[in-house]
Amino acid sequence: MPHFAAADLGGTTVACAIGDAAGHILRESSMPTRASEGPDAVLGRIAAELAALARDAGVSIRALGMGVPGRADLAAGVTRFLPNLPTQWRDVPVAAFLSSRLECSVRLLNDARLATLGELTYGHGRGVGTMLFFTLGTGIGGGVAIGGRLHMDEMGTAGELGHQTILPDGPLCGCGNHGCLETLASGPAIAAEGVRLLRAGLAPHLFELTGGDPGRVTPREMAAAGDESVRQAILRAARYLGIGVANLVTALHPELVVFGGGVAALGELLFAEVRAEVARRVRMFPIDGLRILPSQLGERAGLCGGLALASS
Amino acid sequence: MPHFAAADLGGTTVACAIGDAAGHILRESSMPTRASEGPDAVLGRIAAELAALARDAGVSIRALGMGVPGRADLAAGVTRFLPNLPTQWRDVPVAAFLSSRLECSVRLLNDARLATLGELTYGHGRGVGTMLFFTLGTGIGGGVAIGGRLHMDEMGTAGELGHQTILPDGPLCGCGNHGCLETLASGPAIAAEGVRLLRAGLAPHLFELTGGDPGRVTPREMAAAGDESVRQAILRAARYLGIGVANLVTALHPELVVFGGGVAALGELLFAEVRAEVARRVRMFPIDGLRILPSQLGERAGLCGGLALASS
Repeated sequence: MPHFAAADLGGTTVACAIGDAAGHILRESSMPTRASEGPDAVLGRIAAELAALARDAGVSIRALGMGVPGRADLAAGVTRFLPNLPTQWRDVPVAAFLSSRLECSVRLLNDARLATLGELTYGHGRGVGTMLFFTLGTGIGGGVAIGGRLHMDEMGTAGELGHQTILPDGPLCGCGNHGCLETLASGPAIAAEGVRLLRAGLAPHLFELTGGDPGRVTPREMAAAGDESVRQAILRAARYLGIGVANLVTALHPELVVFGGGVAALGELLFAEVRAEVARRVRMFPIDGLRILPSQLGERAGLCGGLALASS
Repeated sequence: MPHFAAADLGGTTVACAIGDAAGHILRESSMPTRASEGPDAVLGRIAAELAALARDAGVSIRALGMGVPGRADLAAGVTRFLPNLPTQWRDVPVAAFLSSRLECSVRLLNDARLATLGELTYGHGRGVGTMLFFTLGTGIGGGVAIGGRLHMDEMGTAGELGHQTILPDGPLCGCGNHGCLETLASGPAIAAEGVRLLRAGLAPHLFELTGGDPGRVTPREMAAAGDESVRQAILRAARYLGIGVANLVTALHPELVVFGGGVAALGELLFAEVRAEVARRVRMFPIDGLRILPSQLGERAGLCGGLALASS
């Protein structure tokens, strides 16, 4: 059976894997990105790591599928705008560089769309026609599958589900718009409200759990703290997420909505409220059959998507 | 060349046409629905009218494509929920009835999706991959095309673009949700604000134009009046529309957005502000190539969609 490589380039971490066309990962690893050292150094490390993983598994690499945190010219395999990396990462011929080092074909895709492709191919999305995928983390990314295929355009930009306007006059978003879903329900958005409650003296358990250190306030710590005020803050974020989901359910009537990323780990506290808000908002047609679930592949959705992209 | 029939059933009017697979209409007519007389009477009139139009054109009907104002079981050709018609219109076997009268196959589709199909097949949508269509009238309906085809589900419910939540705590919508785009930018929503301005003494020209009669206040009269306050009300509705468009552009990155229905007749006053709001809101990727246009087919989009549905 031929083998494939996957890489997922992030602002702080790069994940690498070797696997097969069935989505089975044989070897995987992660390392700090150290993006400021420049594309040549980082991409050189990725090539060396993938080669080492393949050697260790005793296989050769047929093709590489790689996620990048932003926009790229997919046909040319060249980055365009990667907002969380230094500007030297603009217009980098990533596919050509890695293709020459690894002697295989290389395909790029936005990292959230790559995770969508993974979930669609190997996760809950198998056999599903229309699916929405949200990555809930530092930002909120996403992807849309229609007719069982990832909905795409030339730059892989379609699917920015975190940049719907939920509050027209809401907080400024990193993208330049106001009131995007990302400003209301991303990890940092939820944590910021946790910090406010902590500082306002409204979250004694969270204070105890974090030693009063704002830097230690995360959605996970907030869920663990058990303060009612903090729980309400998480539920409010879940309702904003529910509005974002409901808008797209109304437009596309998917069979499945999947949440990946760290914030999805909040589990039922989050999911129950998202489902309730979607039921309150989608009134034009019955949505009994709609499933709203955490990713089956979890943190490996992106790497599995890389295998799907490489082997397709 | 074979000929086809189209019908578009509305709460107040039924439109009928005979045409060909190229979308050319040979004969057309419209008549009051008089829905309270019941499905048998209304459907009987539609069958008789289509037969008369075909006879007049000297052609026979190969198949009929028909729009219904709500949900239907498309495979069975049976209505489900038509919110603007009396309850006796629920679970009516429209396709079987008309098929037996006209001796041809009959296919149903939601009226807004039918207009979307018309625009996609014969209007601005020809050759386009991803397109959004909004019908701006008494309500706001819509449809989505992906990969050059109408995005569908079993009941033809996907595409309810007027029922996105724009203001989470906004006005109650007919669907049961709050703050839907329809509550902020439909014909009645715009007119209601016109009436308020009229009664508050803030719209002297509109008062003059309508003789102070709230029943005569329509978006068209408002645009003609020229009061600055009234112009601002229209622009605010346009900005809400722009938010609704921007949300779906961010998710799907269409090449084309088309507005049909009576409110679209407001023209550049509306379109310029919609385009400006979309540019303010969509910041994740360049949208230089995005076209936002009034329907090429205008009021005939639904009938043309009926011909497309019948001949496909």
